[in-house]
Amino acid sequence: MLTDNNMRALLVGRFQPFHNGHLNLVEKILEKSDSIIIVIGSAQHSYTLENPFTAGERLEMISAVLKESVHKDFYIVPVEDVDSNSIWVSHIETLVPKFDVIFTNNPLVRTLFLDKGYKVESTSLHDRSDLSGTNIRKKMLKGEHWEQLVPVQISKYIKQIGGVKRIAMIAKSDKATL
Amino acid sequence: MLTDNNMRALLVGRFQPFHNGHLNLVEKILEKSDSIIIVIGSAQHSYTLENPFTAGERLEMISAVLKESVHKDFYIVPVEDVDSNSIWVSHIETLVPKFDVIFTNNPLVRTLFLDKGYKVESTSLHDRSDLSGTNIRKKMLKGEHWEQLVPVQISKYIKQIGGVKRIAMIAKSDKATL
Amino acid sequence: MLTDNNMRALLVGRFQPFHNGHLNLVEKILEKSDSIIIVIGSAQHSYTLENPFTAGERLEMISAVLKESVHKDFYIVPVEDVDSNSIWVSHIETLVPKFDVIFTNNPLVRTLFLDKGYKVESTSLHDRSDLSGTNIRKKMLKGEHWEQLVPVQISKYIKQIGGVKRIAMIAKSDKATL
Amino acid sequence: MLTDNNMRALLVGRFQPFHNGHLNLVEKILEKSDSIIIVIGSAQHSYTLENPFTAGERLEMISAVLKESVHKDFYIVPVEDVDSNSIWVSHIETLVPKFDVIFTNNPLVRTLFLDKGYKVESTSLHDRSDLSGTNIRKKMLKGEHWEQLVPVQISKYIKQIGGVKRIAMIAKSDKATL
Amino acid sequence: MLTDNNMRALLVGRFQPFHNGHLNLVEKILEKSDSIIIVIGSAQHSYTLENPFTAGERLEMISAVLKESVHKDFYIVPVEDVDSNSIWVSHIETLVPKFDVIFTNNPLVRTLFLDKGYKVESTSLHDRSDLSGTNIRKKMLKGEHWEQLVPVQISKYIKQIGGVKRIAMIAKSDKATL
Amino acid sequence: MLTDNNMRALLVGRFQPFHNGHLNLVEKILEKSDSIIIVIGSAQHSYTLENPFTAGERLEMISAVLKESVHKDFYIVPVEDVDSNSIWVSHIETLVPKFDVIFTNNPLVRTLFLDKGYKVESTSLHDRSDLSGTNIRKKMLKGEHWEQLVPVQISKYIKQIGGVKRIAMIAKSDKATL
Repeated sequence: MLTDNNMRALLVGRFQPFHNGHLNLVEKILEKSDSIIIVIGSAQHSYTLENPFTAGERLEMISAVLKESVHKDFYIVPVEDVDSNSIWVSHIETLVPKFDVIFTNNPLVRTLFLDKGYKVESTSLHDRSDLSGTNIRKKMLKGEHWEQLVPVQISKYIKQIGGVKRIAMIAKSDKATL
Repeated sequence: MLTDNNMRALLVGRFQPFHNGHLNLVEKILEKSDSIIIVIGSAQHSYTLENPFTAGERLEMISAVLKESVHKDFYIVPVEDVDSNSIWVSHIETLVPKFDVIFTNNPLVRTLFLDKGYKVESTSLHDRSDLSGTNIRKKMLKGEHWEQLVPVQISKYIKQIGGVKRIAMIAKSDKATL
Repeated sequence: MLTDNNMRALLVGRFQPFHNGHLNLVEKILEKSDSIIIVIGSAQHSYTLENPFTAGERLEMISAVLKESVHKDFYIVPVEDVDSNSIWVSHIETLVPKFDVIFTNNPLVRTLFLDKGYKVESTSLHDRSDLSGTNIRKKMLKGEHWEQLVPVQISKYIKQIGGVKRIAMIAKSDKATL
Repeated sequence: MLTDNNMRALLVGRFQPFHNGHLNLVEKILEKSDSIIIVIGSAQHSYTLENPFTAGERLEMISAVLKESVHKDFYIVPVEDVDSNSIWVSHIETLVPKFDVIFTNNPLVRTLFLDKGYKVESTSLHDRSDLSGTNIRKKMLKGEHWEQLVPVQISKYIKQIGGVKRIAMIAKSDKATL
Repeated sequence: MLTDNNMRALLVGRFQPFHNGHLNLVEKILEKSDSIIIVIGSAQHSYTLENPFTAGERLEMISAVLKESVHKDFYIVPVEDVDSNSIWVSHIETLVPKFDVIFTNNPLVRTLFLDKGYKVESTSLHDRSDLSGTNIRKKMLKGEHWEQLVPVQISKYIKQIGGVKRIAMIAKSDKATL
Repeated sequence: MLTDNNMRALLVGRFQPFHNGHLNLVEKILEKSDSIIIVIGSAQHSYTLENPFTAGERLEMISAVLKESVHKDFYIVPVEDVDSNSIWVSHIETLVPKFDVIFTNNPLVRTLFLDKGYKVESTSLHDRSDLSGTNIRKKMLKGEHWEQLVPVQISKYIKQIGGVKRIAMIAKSDKATL
């Protein structure tokens, strides 16, 4: 679809936060592709336990990592959720540059893209359960070490914006009052 | 409200999927009414465990059943959810033909329609707990027999579109990644 | 895509109101197709000069016509607008039964469906400029004869609900106050 | 509907800004009613030529006037627009206290409330064409005197927030860039 | 920000229902402020177990209490939720009069307003766990005494609209059918 | 706000399409700033006369230009419109990296950002009226030369996706049918 036999890959995540598993995955994808689009999903959410960081903060953090780690073209695009899974692929297509292949281990994402005629490849993440956003946010909340699980630009940025304190504050909040 | 003393009934459900209990109910309603409107609720949802089928698929399935089973007029109308229960009746009124009576056993639906001046009748479903969408989706997921709980047109259609496989795939998916 | 070599057509319009040109078109489409889906667009609009009738009223009117005029399967589905043209086809796909071919003379609709891989056919409406919703609503407003431009079930229904008076009242209204 | 034979009236407007015609109308309504609900329509709009003031500013201004001019109970409620005229009455009902009668000269508003079974009364505004929000905003834009057309609390407030300068700035703006 | 050294406070809650703890808080705030804005949050929700009363009902109830208990200016403004916490403060600012200080014990609300440069004060509610909306709704559902936990105008109003019966009915409802 | 005395600028536009005036402006801004955020406004619109290109296409086009023309960091972020001007700045803040200064000649944009405490600078575009999206789209529609008004990467991309033909097709379409 792209000119000159270029291959462009798509990767979707919430990146709360972007961690070493994500970076490793991006590097593997770029061994097989010429460029990558990183979709920051649930872009409208922030200041919640599941989604502590704004889309803008996630964009800035991931960009800081990739500028130093990656030597091919990358696009980082915040995308808000849509209510309907069946129009989700179309929503993505509207907001990002054209792409050729999707990398995902999620069976639903796989199906939704396959149904639209896309090529979908699996991601061979070594199953390190500590490398997940959920685990990292949990460690932040418990005051445990999390810094070694993310690229150095990420931990630096999160400290700079007071991210750990923010998560603690959200956890203490009575959500009902909002 | 309708001309010529015609009586038109309204029935609301998500129909994930439409099963023998629903069909039995439609037949009983049409003994007392001249026509029926079937509202397919939560029309915007699909490809989730609670709502595996799109509104279009549900419309097509239910239509296939009623064309063969029912000899009175029926309307099948997909309706998306609204955020606010208190405007829900008004939302329904806008999207469907005029109606005279609502059949429901749901106390909230009963109250919302009674408050707008509608006649509401109870549905005398024999309490067969296996005849529920939740139970049927659970059986599909476990690989148990579910086909005998739905009209034959429904089981045929679900097989044709790979519906059981779809539910399995949704169950395996890490929802967070979406 | 449909079983048994059945061909299903899609026709999109606002049908404010459904007129003889629409009926003629439906009949022509059904000469070449086994069934038809009629999408009632802009379903959320009503009580405006452009869209005087609710989706429910339009559904009821069109259904009254087709039940007497057409002897093949038809589906009538109200569909609310979406903000984004580029996800519009996907939105339609979610809400209606599967279809094989789209009939339209609208170049944009043609392109949007062609881009998704659909077969699109032109509609050979004899160019009778009086057969348009705009013209019919204008005649209603001026107190001129419009009844001969629509099927008899339509004119009967519009009279029954006081449709002409409604349009006059909308025209007199100061929209700004709403 | 209200206890003790109290009569509560509803008045809807955008109040951009609230002027002497509005105040006069409120006073007349309160001669016949025990309390009044003032709905600030199009509450989501502001910083446009049609709607320069935010809902909060409008609420604060109108409140300042009524506290000094009116000696019966009043409620001022900002209400965002809904897409669909046919659910508009239901939307209002959800957001304001119960009411008995609507005062309006707008034929559409009249019809929408009559259709829901409400009592609707006309407003006998002496037809002073200079007493309209449109006219007042036009005078502000041209640098003409407008202060005598609004209650003194309104002109004072608008000056305090730099309202005339805001309208000038909106007029100069290339809307397309937003 | 306000003229004449007036101090205006903001208080946010869902008030399902407004109880003696809320009233006590309002009175304490008004010892330190000249006026108060009460934001009725989640205004779009009603007829659910968490949010049984409409925004209009809540507005009417709270107004009935404050008119008799409070002798300073108050504003009561229904505000619908927004999807995004990070734009929530801006959403509030648009819909209510200008304010100087926020009273809250919620750490997230505190942070969101602090980040926008507002002054935030803690509320020194004596920790009476029975004075919570959740507890009161639970008592209503169990048929226990709840009347003594709310101002007399509130209990009278809730009885008048059949509020306890409404909550019972919602509890019995099969939510899935909606 | 950014570390190490870095200055980051924000530029907002619809870029339908990005032209030589835009590029010139970006270059001037980057003489005074260390990095730039380009917000693609009205991201949800496409396939209309005002907004022919999708946000994804615009992102891809602008990226192609800046990668070759600019040697400082840039971020390109699609942002959907919000209904309310008064929350627009907050919406932008949520979706993009932190920034220090806004470049705009639009008085409204200037005011909205100034009111939130931002530094706003004027853009000294030489007033070439032919360098506007409106003019370029008009030339495309008339079959006139437009290629010299945009960077070469833009004209190449627009030709590749059939952009001129798309605009012609939109112009021919009867919008009402959608």
